[in-house]
Amino acid sequence: MTASPPLPYDGRHVLADFHGCTARLDDIGLVERALRAASDAAGATILDLNLHHFGDGQGVTGVALLAESHMSIHTWPEHDYAALDLFLCGRQHNIDAALAVLADGFAPADIAKRVIARGYGVAALVE
Amino acid sequence: MTASPPLPYDGRHVLADFHGCTARLDDIGLVERALRAASDAAGATILDLNLHHFGDGQGVTGVALLAESHMSIHTWPEHDYAALDLFLCGRQHNIDAALAVLADGFAPADIAKRVIARGYGVAALVE
Repeated sequence: MTASPPLPYDGRHVLADFHGCTARLDDIGLVERALRAASDAAGATILDLNLHHFGDGQGVTGVALLAESHMSIHTWPEHDYAALDLFLCGRQHNIDAALAVLADGFAPADIAKRVIARGYGVAALVE
Repeated sequence: MTASPPLPYDGRHVLADFHGCTARLDDIGLVERALRAASDAAGATILDLNLHHFGDGQGVTGVALLAESHMSIHTWPEHDYAALDLFLCGRQHNIDAALAVLADGFAPADIAKRVIARGYGVAALVE
């Protein structure tokens, strides 16, 4: 779906559910590397990066605070499942490249993706 | 929309766009208090809280890393606009109470809200 007239604030928020991941989802280093690589691929700037490991063999949560909004990853290794969100305020940033990097890092069998356009002065639109 | 059979992982991700906010959106203290109060209202546990102020009169970004996933706020004071997301993995946490607290804190004229059910073993559903 496209907006007409164009959105005054042209942001996109991607929610991606990675199912059947074959990567080690309990690896906090992997989550950190994935967030850094995805931010680089998007051309975004990391202001801060927070990570939390819930224990041996358990999930990891990571959030990158970006100059352009944020990216987050939450993993459930026992279900080979990771829930990601990528929110970037500006089409000049390559959110698709970031998602491709994340898919490469976690190697999911399937991705359920939602792309939501957000901005001021308009209602949110679901693509 | 409801899922049948029930989602094995019963999480909800709320994207809320606050338009016409009358609160001071350049107030980093307000953003911090709002995130803490919303987490409390949801019955969620804050693991870490990150805030960034882009400068005098400019926007604030805040992300609360939760044991139950995360909440984020990004503000654009020049447009009286704030983009929020609340992701909680479990219906025992009161996401509606959290959103009510945030609406009380930022006093928007209008809220555009999307609620997305997420979980492993199922495709994402948009309510």
